[in-house]
Amino acid sequence: MTQPTLTRSWVASANGHTDFPLQNLPLGVFSVNGSAPRAGVAIGDSILDLHAAIDAFDGDARRAVEATAGGQLNAFFELGRGPRVALRERLLTLLAEGSTLQAREAHVLHRAADCQMHVPARINDYTDFYVGIEHAQNVGKLFRPDNPLLPNYKYVPIGYHGRASTIRPSGTDVRRPKGQTLPAGQAEPIFGPCARLDYELELGVWIGQGNEMGDSIAIGDAAEHIAGFCLLNDWSARDIQAWEYQPLGPFLSKSFITTISPWVVTVEALEPFRTAQPARPEGDPQPLSYLLDQRDQAAGALDIELEVLLTTAAMREQNLPAYRLALSNSLHMYWTAAQLVAHHSVNGCQLQAGDLLGTGTLSGPQAGQFGSLLEMTEGGKKAVELPSGEVRKFLEDGDEVILRARCSREGFASIGFGECRGTVVAAR
Amino acid sequence: MTQPTLTRSWVASANGHTDFPLQNLPLGVFSVNGSAPRAGVAIGDSILDLHAAIDAFDGDARRAVEATAGGQLNAFFELGRGPRVALRERLLTLLAEGSTLQAREAHVLHRAADCQMHVPARINDYTDFYVGIEHAQNVGKLFRPDNPLLPNYKYVPIGYHGRASTIRPSGTDVRRPKGQTLPAGQAEPIFGPCARLDYELELGVWIGQGNEMGDSIAIGDAAEHIAGFCLLNDWSARDIQAWEYQPLGPFLSKSFITTISPWVVTVEALEPFRTAQPARPEGDPQPLSYLLDQRDQAAGALDIELEVLLTTAAMREQNLPAYRLALSNSLHMYWTAAQLVAHHSVNGCQLQAGDLLGTGTLSGPQAGQFGSLLEMTEGGKKAVELPSGEVRKFLEDGDEVILRARCSREGFASIGFGECRGTVVAAR
Repeated sequence: MTQPTLTRSWVASANGHTDFPLQNLPLGVFSVNGSAPRAGVAIGDSILDLHAAIDAFDGDARRAVEATAGGQLNAFFELGRGPRVALRERLLTLLAEGSTLQAREAHVLHRAADCQMHVPARINDYTDFYVGIEHAQNVGKLFRPDNPLLPNYKYVPIGYHGRASTIRPSGTDVRRPKGQTLPAGQAEPIFGPCARLDYELELGVWIGQGNEMGDSIAIGDAAEHIAGFCLLNDWSARDIQAWEYQPLGPFLSKSFITTISPWVVTVEALEPFRTAQPARPEGDPQPLSYLLDQRDQAAGALDIELEVLLTTAAMREQNLPAYRLALSNSLHMYWTAAQLVAHHSVNGCQLQAGDLLGTGTLSGPQAGQFGSLLEMTEGGKKAVELPSGEVRKFLEDGDEVILRARCSREGFASIGFGECRGTVVAAR
Repeated sequence: MTQPTLTRSWVASANGHTDFPLQNLPLGVFSVNGSAPRAGVAIGDSILDLHAAIDAFDGDARRAVEATAGGQLNAFFELGRGPRVALRERLLTLLAEGSTLQAREAHVLHRAADCQMHVPARINDYTDFYVGIEHAQNVGKLFRPDNPLLPNYKYVPIGYHGRASTIRPSGTDVRRPKGQTLPAGQAEPIFGPCARLDYELELGVWIGQGNEMGDSIAIGDAAEHIAGFCLLNDWSARDIQAWEYQPLGPFLSKSFITTISPWVVTVEALEPFRTAQPARPEGDPQPLSYLLDQRDQAAGALDIELEVLLTTAAMREQNLPAYRLALSNSLHMYWTAAQLVAHHSVNGCQLQAGDLLGTGTLSGPQAGQFGSLLEMTEGGKKAVELPSGEVRKFLEDGDEVILRARCSREGFASIGFGECRGTVVAAR
């Protein structure tokens, strides 16, 4: 365990209730007052500018800081675990009470509220998985009540290629997409704005070191190829999706935007919250050998509480707080993040530093745990009632969706992911 | 028409039978003797080094050459049509008989045989479509003899996101992928090398100027966003595909490698070979309005002859020539390239310069016109007989697949695309 639970930071806001205590230290890319994007570390309500503080680093930690130059973390991810850990260890000292860095606070710290966050890496390829088994069952039940999961589900970590060019940081507006949809009972499609706009609660996995084309990453090595995690909202146009997705899968129903939380919560920060992969229900098959590793089974899962909140324009006008739509957990992943990496590369597919994997929607099995409106409303049949008296079957213009994530464990400082927000704006 | 049919080049090999006469002038990225990749133009059996000849360009043409610096054509693509045409016009003069550039031949020309070709641009996103309607029908018949096309096919230019990281230039070996497959009649999958490896004959479309997220490219403007075309082999592991593809589409069955021909045949070189989009059969719906443009319907299709050839290790040992598996044509596209661009961006999806679109397999309806072994062998039931006495249902290690393309029209010089080759090597 690398969590120094008792250490306090000289950044006072890091010692209270915050997503970013000294024990987190997520990396991101920010700009301030229109400056060029640069790498930073979140600490309390502030951001440490790594390059402004570069003189405080040497050895592997300095190599790590140097690799963040240029406002993209790809080269840093590519360095792998050693320099990432060295950077973390040094930051733990520099940001702890009593550090000499405090004397330079004005030069190295920015108020996060003054900063703009960016997508932290050049994402060459984005892959979205479908490993939230409760979501797969909830959605499958809408179409096949007696047989919700397809025969391959418990063998194959199902995934598909997503669109990298439209991944945006938290806070980016979500333009309602237009497209073809087939009205109920009609034989011919119509063209117009999406009428069934939805969110999906997911985790994102940032790839660290990659592999050469033709090579595979063995399951026992796969965790070493992961740099960190973020929140991901896989906005979905359900009506466009229903009409377009056969036979090659979702396309325009997803590619209009994907929103991520901008901070990369490192594997090291999450170490205290690793746990055994939940036992497969009696009768489920064992993973095939290329997906099976004892250490991964014993400690490859993550216990992260996940939350979806909504505000509408009317709720904001009435000063109503954001309404919680769902509380779920990453333990609903049927496959570990390491299994996703091993599966993705088993055919020789090249992964590269900065590639992003989505987990798929991480719902629980019960009401209050559903990671999409599709599940909450049973495909648009049941309306959700909001504190403002409004109802929703799908998202309306002006609605803001907020994803949050938090890890807690007795004896350890609780850490969070920051937010992943997006407000729906009208179609052009 | 920008084709100066009667002009001859001082590069003698450009005046005989060649894919690259003076009327073609495709752009690519090459290196020689391990040099850094640089931009070039194919002319006969040679490559013109654009930067070595930069003093011969001015104005928009020079801007175009400057944009090819760094060995990637993205910035050049982003410039759009004007500078691309200016570069072409200047090259037509510089490479024509009587040009003063001839005096500098030794400094600006390389023998293509001495050069290594590269993927010509940084491909941020790769999308594969499925618009070869005969292929869709041929494949659909294997599963649904009475109803081969799904209800959306004639309304939606079906496509899906592909893997950008494993796109490689012609000549790259194709490592046989490993993965999960479900043996016939079994309930549980096995893991091992693909046993049903196939090729797919496609065209690639290089995106020129892109669009901002949230904007759409109107069908009337879409042709202006295309820089050029190439050949594309969408290698496919049919057994992995059959097991993995429900419900989100092909994934590892495609992502192990995609091979392209390295020369970008420009929109301008193809202008004489544009033609009317073939009339839709009686009873087919008209395209929805966002896909319908009179100019595109009148001249948005391409008449390109497409060829698939095969050699096996035994055929090469016996000095047998490559065997033609198929002769097809790009007129089997149900949608034009402009329609692909308009559809792709209609939801606000951002396209970027250097994005690559595959058309999908371009088969004809008859024997001898099929762009995949899946179609030729009716799903592995009928063996293909080769001149060596060998038979094939799917590809074996040592097989080399060669794609070629050529445009011909009375009164115009015939142009070709160069080759798209790949040899299958054994699984690791």
